[in-house]
Amino acid sequence: MCAMSGELIIDLGAICQNYKILDDLSADSCETAVVVKANAYGTGAVRVVPELYKAGARSFFVSTSDEGIQIRGILPEAKIYILNGFWNKTHDVYQQYNLIPVLNSLYEIKSYQNQARRIGHALPAVLHFDTGMNRLGIIADEAKILCDDLSLLDGFDLDFIMSHFSSSDEKNSSVNIEQYRCFQKLSSCFKDVKKSLCNSGGVLLSKDYHLDITRPGIALYGGNPIWGEANIMQPVVSLCAPIIQIHSVKKGEKAGYNGIYCFDDDGDVAIVSIGYADGILRSSENIGSLYFNGHKMPIRGRISMDLVICDLSEVPQKDYPDIGDMVEVIGVHQTLDDLACNARTISYEILTSMGPRYNRIYKQN
Amino acid sequence: MCAMSGELIIDLGAICQNYKILDDLSADSCETAVVVKANAYGTGAVRVVPELYKAGARSFFVSTSDEGIQIRGILPEAKIYILNGFWNKTHDVYQQYNLIPVLNSLYEIKSYQNQARRIGHALPAVLHFDTGMNRLGIIADEAKILCDDLSLLDGFDLDFIMSHFSSSDEKNSSVNIEQYRCFQKLSSCFKDVKKSLCNSGGVLLSKDYHLDITRPGIALYGGNPIWGEANIMQPVVSLCAPIIQIHSVKKGEKAGYNGIYCFDDDGDVAIVSIGYADGILRSSENIGSLYFNGHKMPIRGRISMDLVICDLSEVPQKDYPDIGDMVEVIGVHQTLDDLACNARTISYEILTSMGPRYNRIYKQN
Repeated sequence: MCAMSGELIIDLGAICQNYKILDDLSADSCETAVVVKANAYGTGAVRVVPELYKAGARSFFVSTSDEGIQIRGILPEAKIYILNGFWNKTHDVYQQYNLIPVLNSLYEIKSYQNQARRIGHALPAVLHFDTGMNRLGIIADEAKILCDDLSLLDGFDLDFIMSHFSSSDEKNSSVNIEQYRCFQKLSSCFKDVKKSLCNSGGVLLSKDYHLDITRPGIALYGGNPIWGEANIMQPVVSLCAPIIQIHSVKKGEKAGYNGIYCFDDDGDVAIVSIGYADGILRSSENIGSLYFNGHKMPIRGRISMDLVICDLSEVPQKDYPDIGDMVEVIGVHQTLDDLACNARTISYEILTSMGPRYNRIYKQN
Repeated sequence: MCAMSGELIIDLGAICQNYKILDDLSADSCETAVVVKANAYGTGAVRVVPELYKAGARSFFVSTSDEGIQIRGILPEAKIYILNGFWNKTHDVYQQYNLIPVLNSLYEIKSYQNQARRIGHALPAVLHFDTGMNRLGIIADEAKILCDDLSLLDGFDLDFIMSHFSSSDEKNSSVNIEQYRCFQKLSSCFKDVKKSLCNSGGVLLSKDYHLDITRPGIALYGGNPIWGEANIMQPVVSLCAPIIQIHSVKKGEKAGYNGIYCFDDDGDVAIVSIGYADGILRSSENIGSLYFNGHKMPIRGRISMDLVICDLSEVPQKDYPDIGDMVEVIGVHQTLDDLACNARTISYEILTSMGPRYNRIYKQN
């Protein structure tokens, strides 16, 4: 049955190929972990996570302990890391579901140490050092205290230490080198401990950055991790939506809410059953396009909650669509990154904004 | 248990109050229908729809037949209208679930008439005329054909005819008056049929526009339907999220991805466990704020998928937050519309973007 909603195809095989591409880029001694937070970047953790495990991934990163609990239900054997750290208010769930917190401050280290004492044995942990992003992570002043007194880590089995690139999408940014050097300096305090620095961009930027464990996210899902470079990842997501009406418009008439677009000629528009409630961000009003048979159909006027108005003037008569035809939102003619660019955002936000109304089809192999 | 995610409170009582406010604005003879498409504007149709029914609503508008089927499962007696029309590919579901299509073109009228012939009895229908929005709806040329030959409607029990305001959020726009006049002119062809024109904005603009049935949406959910006017609706949604780290920053340091914000003084930041995967749109980077105890905490740098960096420099020491404290995203100090405005969008998109990670709490009465 072909519903009057968009159809979202998620290519699980492509996700696994991307895992292999990324894994092959680094040395055999380097583990390729995977980031599956935010419902595997909106693609559906329940379906994606088992495939990544089959492809060889053994370490899975999520943001919150709730996300970790979900992954644990799917993968009894995997290592599951909680990026948002140790949350004292739900301290029991870490042991109950075998979740490893990424500790982001002395405060968390202290709390988690108390937990280890309560339980009476060493607990697995990761330390995350901030190297200039000023988001999560142990800041420089705290790192110094820690390096001066490693007994603060008593009670932990350190899995590895990590940091996070802030600008790995900018190939020539000196910030990447600065963060790498800063992390290397910190690493000297943790000689026998594994090291992890790379998100997707980092994996592609330099083998020097790979260290012991990489942690790609967006590249697995087909997004281009580096601005202005050719995307070497396989596309994962394709999206189309049905035309529910085609009608004529006259020169001088307006389109959509607040009439922000004025037609400069007579023509036709196609009304497509997709809108911002589905994740077609309003910021792409009057800028973005959908495609039919490879022909561009510019979006006219505002995006509605459930509808988009597209101009058919660039579609030749021989390829004219019918009512009921599906138009391409993400596919061969418009990549995920193109769509993001037109909405003045990044592929990550497009993925995590994909709404619940789509008919989701998972493509295996 | 207090998870490390945001907490979204949806006040069902406020939704019902808003229904009453809107219903009281129009004459007793005018029915107040409700728009519950897109999962009741992201608030959760399964919980919201029964409350609206209890509050007196009997007519429910959704976009797609799938949404209609969901509502039918909750409300066996209600009238359910499918705004995106009659979709021939799934023609059976309309009868099976007693869904009434809003017919948007002669093409749909024809298809639905064929359906009536197949079934062998008259079918309920609504006609939607476009009066200048050029989105969905029977365009002027087709309306003329229809008015000249009403036999085209044989086989239908017409529930009502409708049109839709494009600019009802602009109080002084002449477009509203033009659309009203255009609709009145069309109405003369359908003398004994009920008429509906008003979305939320229309209900507030003028009693003249109310006609027989109003169809508010955003106002039910607490959004302000008219720009620049005081919002007379009760707030429905409140949202808070936990601080998971507080750390110092130094003058000259940068915040977040690509370091787009530079601190001009030493200070502290709070890292809040919420991000664009939860619906805090990236477009509010460096502009938006969260609040703690009524004190503004400006967002610094980019919004991450799962995290926001907030500046604590405006929070006095006596009110300083602790790790684990919840900060206000939508509430007393920042309305839904404020949040939308900072993200350069409208309340509707904020509501429909609310992500799945929140702990959703439904407040009754």
